[in-house]
Amino acid sequence: MLEALKEEVYQANMLLETYRLITFTWGNVGAVDANRELMVIKPSGVPYAELTPDSMVVVELSTGRRVEGSFNPSSDTPTHRYLFNHMEHVNAVVHTHSRWATIFAQAGRGIPALGTTHADYFYGEIPCTRAMTKAEVLQEYEEETGKVIVECFSTKDPLAVPAVLVNSHGPFCWAKTAHKAVENAVVLEEVAMMAYHTVLLGSSDHTVMDQHLLDKHYLRKHGKDAYYGQH
Amino acid sequence: MLEALKEEVYQANMLLETYRLITFTWGNVGAVDANRELMVIKPSGVPYAELTPDSMVVVELSTGRRVEGSFNPSSDTPTHRYLFNHMEHVNAVVHTHSRWATIFAQAGRGIPALGTTHADYFYGEIPCTRAMTKAEVLQEYEEETGKVIVECFSTKDPLAVPAVLVNSHGPFCWAKTAHKAVENAVVLEEVAMMAYHTVLLGSSDHTVMDQHLLDKHYLRKHGKDAYYGQH
Amino acid sequence: MLEALKEEVYQANMLLETYRLITFTWGNVGAVDANRELMVIKPSGVPYAELTPDSMVVVELSTGRRVEGSFNPSSDTPTHRYLFNHMEHVNAVVHTHSRWATIFAQAGRGIPALGTTHADYFYGEIPCTRAMTKAEVLQEYEEETGKVIVECFSTKDPLAVPAVLVNSHGPFCWAKTAHKAVENAVVLEEVAMMAYHTVLLGSSDHTVMDQHLLDKHYLRKHGKDAYYGQH
Amino acid sequence: MLEALKEEVYQANMLLETYRLITFTWGNVGAVDANRELMVIKPSGVPYAELTPDSMVVVELSTGRRVEGSFNPSSDTPTHRYLFNHMEHVNAVVHTHSRWATIFAQAGRGIPALGTTHADYFYGEIPCTRAMTKAEVLQEYEEETGKVIVECFSTKDPLAVPAVLVNSHGPFCWAKTAHKAVENAVVLEEVAMMAYHTVLLGSSDHTVMDQHLLDKHYLRKHGKDAYYGQH
Repeated sequence: MLEALKEEVYQANMLLETYRLITFTWGNVGAVDANRELMVIKPSGVPYAELTPDSMVVVELSTGRRVEGSFNPSSDTPTHRYLFNHMEHVNAVVHTHSRWATIFAQAGRGIPALGTTHADYFYGEIPCTRAMTKAEVLQEYEEETGKVIVECFSTKDPLAVPAVLVNSHGPFCWAKTAHKAVENAVVLEEVAMMAYHTVLLGSSDHTVMDQHLLDKHYLRKHGKDAYYGQH
Repeated sequence: MLEALKEEVYQANMLLETYRLITFTWGNVGAVDANRELMVIKPSGVPYAELTPDSMVVVELSTGRRVEGSFNPSSDTPTHRYLFNHMEHVNAVVHTHSRWATIFAQAGRGIPALGTTHADYFYGEIPCTRAMTKAEVLQEYEEETGKVIVECFSTKDPLAVPAVLVNSHGPFCWAKTAHKAVENAVVLEEVAMMAYHTVLLGSSDHTVMDQHLLDKHYLRKHGKDAYYGQH
Repeated sequence: MLEALKEEVYQANMLLETYRLITFTWGNVGAVDANRELMVIKPSGVPYAELTPDSMVVVELSTGRRVEGSFNPSSDTPTHRYLFNHMEHVNAVVHTHSRWATIFAQAGRGIPALGTTHADYFYGEIPCTRAMTKAEVLQEYEEETGKVIVECFSTKDPLAVPAVLVNSHGPFCWAKTAHKAVENAVVLEEVAMMAYHTVLLGSSDHTVMDQHLLDKHYLRKHGKDAYYGQH
Repeated sequence: MLEALKEEVYQANMLLETYRLITFTWGNVGAVDANRELMVIKPSGVPYAELTPDSMVVVELSTGRRVEGSFNPSSDTPTHRYLFNHMEHVNAVVHTHSRWATIFAQAGRGIPALGTTHADYFYGEIPCTRAMTKAEVLQEYEEETGKVIVECFSTKDPLAVPAVLVNSHGPFCWAKTAHKAVENAVVLEEVAMMAYHTVLLGSSDHTVMDQHLLDKHYLRKHGKDAYYGQH
């Protein structure tokens, strides 16, 4: 079932290695089917060299029940499910421990919008979630991780800022397709690396980029008046 | 038309990937013909793997009208045009979001001349433009970008300092040929990386290199008494 | 003798180069046989390109006597022996001068647990040994190196924190198998790189991650209730 | 003439690219013949891809006169000559603009001995020369560069500390053979990178490693009682 989606999710997972976003098996891509009833996700802890489209696992979105696949799904599956169930236009989620984004997550800081590279993809700061409580960690930890992410976006449009840093953990990115979600993960790492060094170089009164420049760059690539590219 | 120039501009664009100066399609090289009437530039948003010499776009320098090519030209075309129309010996322009140069641009700081690597290619500080006003950003943004660059060089020789950092954005480099402009972009990134770490390591009274050393290194590679290389 | 173990130790040594943990011959992997009577270790100063399984050296654990092999064993052999003789569940040891871990060692600082990447592999801070005394350095230096490591773990479980930084020197990692010890060395470097930059970015009151999050991540991958992966 | 030495110097020059110590043509290796009458050095400004053993240039050590080769020798030839004429056991010199060593040179700081990686190759701080005067720069600049290096080693043994940082410029390394000089250049870069980050991480009272540890590591690899490796 869902052969095309399994192929797409498999390809997207392999790209995490191509773009050097992961070490060993520390990442996963999941995506929902067109009806938002099932999701396809990487299996847990299987070396990338052994992955195939058929090793992707199909899980029911409402219950978390595995409906196809011989492997256990990623241990982060409940986080993916929660995001898919609460972010309606998000069809694919990527999780990595990519270095520079994780550094901001470990510092408990969002990534400020400091330049047009950021503005081309993310409409404002990429936020960092609050620290999870002991109760949240001890109970349904992975699902609670999804909850703090959704809480963090209560007043933000997830598609305008398609990434978050989970406090003391690492980034989650998303998009309408698995490949676009991986692209966002690549850009997040690039933007995080440059923001990190800009912050260290900057004086203490260094602030974010001008709002009009942020608007301009985001809107020349996104929305109805976009004029970047060939479309 | 302009087959040799399209081939040269195509090759120069591909070098941006070879030298790891770009992510995805975030860069472009443009160059003018011998009469300074037409320019050849990369198309907008086309993956590098799909580029060919024939996908380069020919644009009229005075009007911006596309005179050959099936793709839209780079969205930065008006910036290139403005530079070619106002910097008379500049025949090729390169734009990237290369990491270390972009970090200085995001911090709104020029790259000081701190060593002979810098002096071998850039005769003094590589400046950062002033922030653009809201009006400049909202109107003909890409052309206005060209204007702030030219404003920034009102008292400088563009060929003696063949690079600039656009505030909150990233670098533009130039030269008499497309390949030399790419070489300058490579050196800019190298110089930016080393300047960044020198500044962080340096004491607060750290200043630029001695003027006589800057003169010596720049002039032993450039100008009529140059004695570096085989010419 | 011990052909399978020599092959395993050889493969593990070669992985140090694959994972870019070493420059030239600056690393070694050693492992004990099932009876903990003999150990197999890389020869000293032989270029990696010339290593074969047969160039591995077999040494008696109790005496340090070479019992097979035509090369001198690694000059760090007495450190390996001391660790094997005093850490009972440790079957393999890896030593490198990997960059980020060595930076912490040179600064004389342990690597604090700042995120879940760390917690997935190391149950708390990765400690740095005290500086060795002049007497320790002048006498049986390599064996004394083993002693300060063991001293450093007098109140820690080596398998829960399978790495140490030797003050002013570099990291040693270990595990139940040679391949797992190399995996720990890879993760150590990743964790050190991210901790380094988190510390520099963090405010002065930056502290370690919450204990409940550390517990959660370590225990979901290790111990009887682990649920990560396919086992 | 000197075919074996030209081959060796050619190979050593190519290794600068293999070890990523250079950008474009920014480096050179030179070496003297057994009689210390002639030196072989890379030509100036020739792309590495076009170099062959026969493109190496032979220069008379006493006069600087080219005695064989169709290219101009490296513009740094007078520096090499001065070093060979004033450092009697130095048979090969390497110059690069490798990033981390150049950063220290640009900051005008020596590289302190902070760990055993340093001590294994360099017996104490790698010094930075004083800034050259205007007169020195304007006159025989490259020869004067050699003079400030030799001045810097007036109380040091060049073979015990086989590298120097030329102020605002970059590193020179040396050794008894061209390959060993390149090895020293690789280690210098590794040591510089780690010292840089150790200094930034360290507290303000951070000082160098203990002298007894420096002695131990240097002497276990060098001198008559060395016991590292297979000799």
